[in-house]
Amino acid sequence: MESRLERFREIIKEKKLLDSTLAILHWDIETEAPKGGQELLSQMIGNISLKAYEISTSEELNEIVEFLKNMKNELNEIDKKEIENYSEEMEKLSKIPPMEYKAYTELTAKAQGVWEKAKNENNFSIFKEYLEKIFNYNIKFGKYRNPNKNPYDVILDDYEKGMDRKKLDEFFKDLRENIVPLLKSIQEKKIDNSKYIDGEVSKCSQVLISRFLGEYLGFDFNRGIISESEHPFTLTVNMDDVRITTKYIKELPVSAIFSTIHECGHGIYEQGIDEKLKYTLLADGASMGIHESQSRFYENILGRSKSFWEPIYEKLQEKYTYLKDITLDEFYLGINDVKASLIRVEADELTYSLHIMVRYEIEKGIFEGKYKIGDLPEIWNEKMREYLGVVPENDREGVLQDVHWACGLIGYFPSYALGNVYSLQIYNKMKKDLNIEKILKEGKLHLIKEWLGEHIHKYGKLKNPEEILKEITGEGLNSKYYIEYLKEKYSKIYNLK
Amino acid sequence: MESRLERFREIIKEKKLLDSTLAILHWDIETEAPKGGQELLSQMIGNISLKAYEISTSEELNEIVEFLKNMKNELNEIDKKEIENYSEEMEKLSKIPPMEYKAYTELTAKAQGVWEKAKNENNFSIFKEYLEKIFNYNIKFGKYRNPNKNPYDVILDDYEKGMDRKKLDEFFKDLRENIVPLLKSIQEKKIDNSKYIDGEVSKCSQVLISRFLGEYLGFDFNRGIISESEHPFTLTVNMDDVRITTKYIKELPVSAIFSTIHECGHGIYEQGIDEKLKYTLLADGASMGIHESQSRFYENILGRSKSFWEPIYEKLQEKYTYLKDITLDEFYLGINDVKASLIRVEADELTYSLHIMVRYEIEKGIFEGKYKIGDLPEIWNEKMREYLGVVPENDREGVLQDVHWACGLIGYFPSYALGNVYSLQIYNKMKKDLNIEKILKEGKLHLIKEWLGEHIHKYGKLKNPEEILKEITGEGLNSKYYIEYLKEKYSKIYNLK
Repeated sequence: MESRLERFREIIKEKKLLDSTLAILHWDIETEAPKGGQELLSQMIGNISLKAYEISTSEELNEIVEFLKNMKNELNEIDKKEIENYSEEMEKLSKIPPMEYKAYTELTAKAQGVWEKAKNENNFSIFKEYLEKIFNYNIKFGKYRNPNKNPYDVILDDYEKGMDRKKLDEFFKDLRENIVPLLKSIQEKKIDNSKYIDGEVSKCSQVLISRFLGEYLGFDFNRGIISESEHPFTLTVNMDDVRITTKYIKELPVSAIFSTIHECGHGIYEQGIDEKLKYTLLADGASMGIHESQSRFYENILGRSKSFWEPIYEKLQEKYTYLKDITLDEFYLGINDVKASLIRVEADELTYSLHIMVRYEIEKGIFEGKYKIGDLPEIWNEKMREYLGVVPENDREGVLQDVHWACGLIGYFPSYALGNVYSLQIYNKMKKDLNIEKILKEGKLHLIKEWLGEHIHKYGKLKNPEEILKEITGEGLNSKYYIEYLKEKYSKIYNLK
Repeated sequence: MESRLERFREIIKEKKLLDSTLAILHWDIETEAPKGGQELLSQMIGNISLKAYEISTSEELNEIVEFLKNMKNELNEIDKKEIENYSEEMEKLSKIPPMEYKAYTELTAKAQGVWEKAKNENNFSIFKEYLEKIFNYNIKFGKYRNPNKNPYDVILDDYEKGMDRKKLDEFFKDLRENIVPLLKSIQEKKIDNSKYIDGEVSKCSQVLISRFLGEYLGFDFNRGIISESEHPFTLTVNMDDVRITTKYIKELPVSAIFSTIHECGHGIYEQGIDEKLKYTLLADGASMGIHESQSRFYENILGRSKSFWEPIYEKLQEKYTYLKDITLDEFYLGINDVKASLIRVEADELTYSLHIMVRYEIEKGIFEGKYKIGDLPEIWNEKMREYLGVVPENDREGVLQDVHWACGLIGYFPSYALGNVYSLQIYNKMKKDLNIEKILKEGKLHLIKEWLGEHIHKYGKLKNPEEILKEITGEGLNSKYYIEYLKEKYSKIYNLK
């Protein structure tokens, strides 16, 4: 058993080297690579993906994992969890023919450049074919893995164990029934607080503030960097090399603030995973939902609170000079302005989950054969009208706004909403252990980072999301804290009864 | 034969994919990677290097190349040249044990980070061990390849076919005997023109000027990028993805101008290689010396001429505002200020080759067993005193200044000096075909790019350096044009008889 365990470690280490190489190639194609280089980069990605895939599905590894699975009571906690997880992963991959998988990774690598072009030129038709192929691959792969389930249920379970359409339908119904009336009450007031944060800031100054915020929150710049890309994201090369990007928009300077804080939430999580998991497959977030709970916690619960800005508002005003005549109270109203908008990443805290619901229903509809890709722009616009009361004038602000589908990230969106809900459950418990107001006003954010590190980050994938949530809160998924929080916060801001 | 040729193409394509992947990893480790990520990046580089190496030295490829070598009269021009070159390359590599080669690539990848730290902290001792190992590997590899030659002669031939210590000793003697007296005459005048270009410029503004210069010279930003690094370099991922870096120093703003123009010379060369060579091993510069002739041509012959700046000096003044009260004539004197200095990349056109000579003599001395690595700082300082009359006060400005040895680029430095000489021979011919003064004053740099493209760039490695030089100039290496140019230009600037 010892020698198999050792061999397992060697193989995993080799695989992780290839995964990290892939990460660098992805990083490059999404941040710096010139247009002319993208074709070859997609080929490089396909080439390395195939090598990583071959290791993952090798007979030798298969045999070792099967053997160790049967010896699991003799394994330590880490090895045992890794073998369990890996067994599941292998199960998934083994059902997908290698050349199809390689073609799929090349496709999505290429699709990102095409999406970017389509978005910039507001031309859905050049992206349509890629989107069709990507969804078809996902449907096909889902069926390979479990012919007895709708492939969307198979995929949803990947992102959040135990999740399926039935549970999500109930979940979104619950959110919708509470958020939409609240939104309507606010809209009746016809208050526009966005004026407080309207202005222009040079990219240079925005870059400095993003850097400052990263340091302030505790993102470790010896073990990470902030760069820029079309669509902000976090990418882990390994736990000592965590990379985040943001997007700097001159006329929307507050956008980079919140996407930086959001991505820092992800980055701090990844940097907080226990070092002893470094060469294992458990060096990863517990789930996308738990990951989103961290980014949303930092972005919304902290970043959109007044106490967070108290000690640092002056510093912000030095670089965002147009804020010099805006008080902190006004700034607070501005960053919490509720407006049914078109763009998910710009959406306010209140309406955000409605944007997610639109995407969920569309993904579900495609997998259920209800919707055709060619009709997506129309379907998208219709749902935006129905839930948010606004309609995009063009696809750039409509169905083309997010990069996720181009990356093959289908079934991912619901995790954002689940993350919001988890974040409030976790916050509810954190409040009992820490005096958060005091911590924020004294600028001691590291205490919050440490609490999260102790309760969530350090485990990586050693614990399942349900375990983590249960151990912190004593219960499972429960949207009441989120709903209460939204009602309380926004009733106060908008003087509602 | 057809099927072997086809198989050869497939294998080379796979190898080039891995080489490009390596290029991206190298790019990353030298530009963006956080400190914490460098260890793993070195491992990734070693891992991919080994895979590329295994392809290069596989029995299958060996057999195919041997076969095609014997059929070379039936091959077209490109295939024939590629087989010839590859045969030589294989010959070199096959004599090096794979694991030693892998260890060497990991070593040099790691050494770059160590060099950077050593340089920043002015601490030669932390780098000494790495330098020793790197030189020892080069000595060892040279001996494996040809036990009958001094390994330095083996390596010099890699960079410039036919070059060896005997030829270089004569070459540098010739330069030294002409340049040192000229330098002394200038130094006797005690004129300091550097005051004209002293000033400070923000990084932001320097970045804009670098970008402008790239476009002005004809560097294609769809097929390339400019970024920054500790030590400027050009790295080709492939001909549609050519990356250059520069270094922005706030208090030395003119530094980035000339390193940008220099690297653009390299980049334009790489982008100018004929597209039909794209998937072959001939998509590369003819030699380091020819490459340097291009970068030095752009940097010195164009970039340090008055006519070059005539149409764009005002644009420069807009961003380099401290130049607002400096006339173009004064700027010209400033950028051609002759000063025996400490730093090679900051050296003026006249004294530059003396810096190269110092490095050549040291490399030679190590290979001849004359010098020990531990004594390098002293030896370096002694030679600087002897040839330039200045001595560094610390190793950061002395033996630690260049990254080359950390990268394993030993035997490379002489190419810089050879490049200077080639550039004048080429310029001498170009003047007969083009009215260069007129072209510069009208800002039509693309005409120069096209002439160089036609006579040099498009060939890549399809022609040897001697062929290229002979076809353009009718002769081989001849330093008289370089020496005449320096005498004429600097006698005029310094009013010498």
